[in-house]
Amino acid sequence: MLTDSPAFEQLIDALRRLPGIGKRSAERLALHLLGAPGNDAETLREAIGEARARVATCSVCCDLTETDPCSVCVDERRDRSTVCVVEHPSGAMAIESGRAYRGVYHVLHGVLDPLEGVGPNELTVEKLLARVEAGGVKEVIVATNATAEGEATAMYLSRRIGALGVAVSRIAHGVPMGSGLEFADNVTLTRAIEGRRRL
Amino acid sequence: MLTDSPAFEQLIDALRRLPGIGKRSAERLALHLLGAPGNDAETLREAIGEARARVATCSVCCDLTETDPCSVCVDERRDRSTVCVVEHPSGAMAIESGRAYRGVYHVLHGVLDPLEGVGPNELTVEKLLARVEAGGVKEVIVATNATAEGEATAMYLSRRIGALGVAVSRIAHGVPMGSGLEFADNVTLTRAIEGRRRL
Repeated sequence: MLTDSPAFEQLIDALRRLPGIGKRSAERLALHLLGAPGNDAETLREAIGEARARVATCSVCCDLTETDPCSVCVDERRDRSTVCVVEHPSGAMAIESGRAYRGVYHVLHGVLDPLEGVGPNELTVEKLLARVEAGGVKEVIVATNATAEGEATAMYLSRRIGALGVAVSRIAHGVPMGSGLEFADNVTLTRAIEGRRRL
Repeated sequence: MLTDSPAFEQLIDALRRLPGIGKRSAERLALHLLGAPGNDAETLREAIGEARARVATCSVCCDLTETDPCSVCVDERRDRSTVCVVEHPSGAMAIESGRAYRGVYHVLHGVLDPLEGVGPNELTVEKLLARVEAGGVKEVIVATNATAEGEATAMYLSRRIGALGVAVSRIAHGVPMGSGLEFADNVTLTRAIEGRRRL
């Protein structure tokens, strides 16, 4: 039985560090990796190594990419005067999957969080400011998450970028499309009313 | 952006092979492994390699283990005359966590499934029969799952082991403890009534 196996415990611990994986899931995954008849475990090991070796950050937008600059940054059809700032690569992927945004991105790789020791230097803020200073950018859309840290980061960026004479906007927050008022929380409803637009 | 990265796609594919991991989860995990500031990815790779190298099947019960024979098989306090047959190592771990069973185990590593080409030779059936033939076993408790394949496997084992003159039993199926009749499906209720016991 594996209940007394240190290697099994270590594998579970490594799996539990992944987002959304709790104790039970980690156990199930570990048992699968050890007991799978095929070579799922080796395939996964190789895929992790390969991806880590090939994927780096784009020297322009700091998004994760296999080519540098990334496909969005080299795309001539994108509007390079509009830069959308997101916390993580997943945010850029989410907006991109909406297929409506035609500007470019900038990935911060986190948010300002002084209590956790994350200041502007821990993020890609200076690179963003350098991009704006280099000219050609007309608007920076801050799409950090609607958390306390995301809001604080948005305010900070607005001040820094505003000082360079470039427009800074924040994505709209309100009741999600297709959802009803009764499912929205109080803060969202307050934001929805504050952010109302004339029809 | 990673949407056009083959290495990222391969990592997602490798993660999707894991049980309970769908497309969205795999994407989130892959992004975490690539973007994590620490070395979660390397830790996981090493843990997989280490566990695969150290963990093998017990030569007695076929359970996964780091020591051979496994801790249960060498434990003098266990009742070796009772063998509980489970499909997978996870089943043995589940029964063990109940702390009530004091016998030993035998892990089949699957169930009979002729349509998928799984016959007795693909499982550890011969090893189980050899264990029983070697003597000392008084009862074999078949704890395969309550699926069509699990039931068929139980019937098959009952015939083969019964022919050796050893008692074969099946774990009880019925309404789970702490649950009400209204939450049980029809097959479970039928089994619960068929399996009734005198008070």
